Amino acid sequence: MDFQDYFPLWAKLNRSQQERIRASLLFREVKKGTMLHDGTLDCTGLFLVRDGQLRAYILSEEGREITLYRLFERDMCLLSASCIVHSLQFEVMIAAEKDTSLWVIPADVYKAIMEESAALANYTNELMASRFSDVMWLIEEIMWKSLDKRIADFLMEEAAIEGSNRLQMTHETIANHLGTRREVVTRMLRYFQEEGLVKLSRGVVEITDEKKLAERDP
Amino acid sequence: MDFQDYFPLWAKLNRSQQERIRASLLFREVKKGTMLHDGTLDCTGLFLVRDGQLRAYILSEEGREITLYRLFERDMCLLSASCIVHSLQFEVMIAAEKDTSLWVIPADVYKAIMEESAALANYTNELMASRFSDVMWLIEEIMWKSLDKRIADFLMEEAAIEGSNRLQMTHETIANHLGTRREVVTRMLRYFQEEGLVKLSRGVVEITDEKKLAERDP
Repeated sequence: MDFQDYFPLWAKLNRSQQERIRASLLFREVKKGTMLHDGTLDCTGLFLVRDGQLRAYILSEEGREITLYRLFERDMCLLSASCIVHSLQFEVMIAAEKDTSLWVIPADVYKAIMEESAALANYTNELMASRFSDVMWLIEEIMWKSLDKRIADFLMEEAAIEGSNRLQMTHETIANHLGTRREVVTRMLRYFQEEGLVKLSRGVVEITDEKKLAERDP
Repeated sequence: MDFQDYFPLWAKLNRSQQERIRASLLFREVKKGTMLHDGTLDCTGLFLVRDGQLRAYILSEEGREITLYRLFERDMCLLSASCIVHSLQFEVMIAAEKDTSLWVIPADVYKAIMEESAALANYTNELMASRFSDVMWLIEEIMWKSLDKRIADFLMEEAAIEGSNRLQMTHETIANHLGTRREVVTRMLRYFQEEGLVKLSRGVVEITDEKKLAERDP
């Protein structure tokens, strides 16, 4: 499988555009934990994930984190190339959550083609709208949902991603996904354990009653 | 002043595109309080404000609100026409905060031109990125800033918009901007009053010490 099989707009670009992308394209294989974009407003380029998992998040001055969205196979990330759209005035961090292979399209090449191709510009609109929708979903979560429900939902989402109810994950990591503090997560998980929803051991949260966890009132 | 003086991309459209927009354009004058877009995923069209002030916000199932951004003269709103970008999967409400006159560009006309014009598609990207940035700013506010600081900042922003330190505004309204409850706002404003930052009377919050209000620690 080649780049052109992963990049949905390939067939709508002309030969010259395809060649400019191919000539500038980088392929990277990174280990879990690698920082791919460090949130400064510089322009790392657009990421297209071949396989693995990336996490986009923001960071407060005090070092607290909150996950904005995840990127999986075939997902593309625009926010690592914020210079291609002037009005994108915020910083995100992007790190590999698993060993990941990805292509990087240099921002200047992408931007030049986007300016001449309505198809690529409209596709970019869809990419941005999709991240924008993720973030709006996050605001609704933060604003209207209690933290116990958010932790329960996060555990179930993780179990779905990993295909396992046994999650190797510290309380600190869960807190960093949800924008809260470790102590708060620990307190809530202990309460879940007392209720028989999860079983805790060192560095592991195991979901023991999926149904009851899912049924927690919002 | 005419539509074409307000719509920054006018000169980059061809004659046929300009005519299609002009022929379908609606001009509306609405009173303060008018609901312009009710948050369902239907497509009201793109708004371009001639004068006045609009407010975009979201609503929880329990009726709580939080302001996403405001629109002033020459601002354009894409989210009232979410059908033009498939991946825009969230609902916003848009209401007039002051008597407002605006143009409405029907979504289907805009979308058809955007699909053929790279210039309009790229401009739309900028519009979306700018709202996206507003919302990211809001997340950082909610996540990392204490409510007293958010209320202080909101009062100062309002004073700047109104050009007056005397704000005719109920505690309920402030709560609806910030996504919190009236009781919480009332408690905080009373505390501000004790500290000499504001003076409260029926339906009015008057900023009495701007400097001290601005200096509140984040």
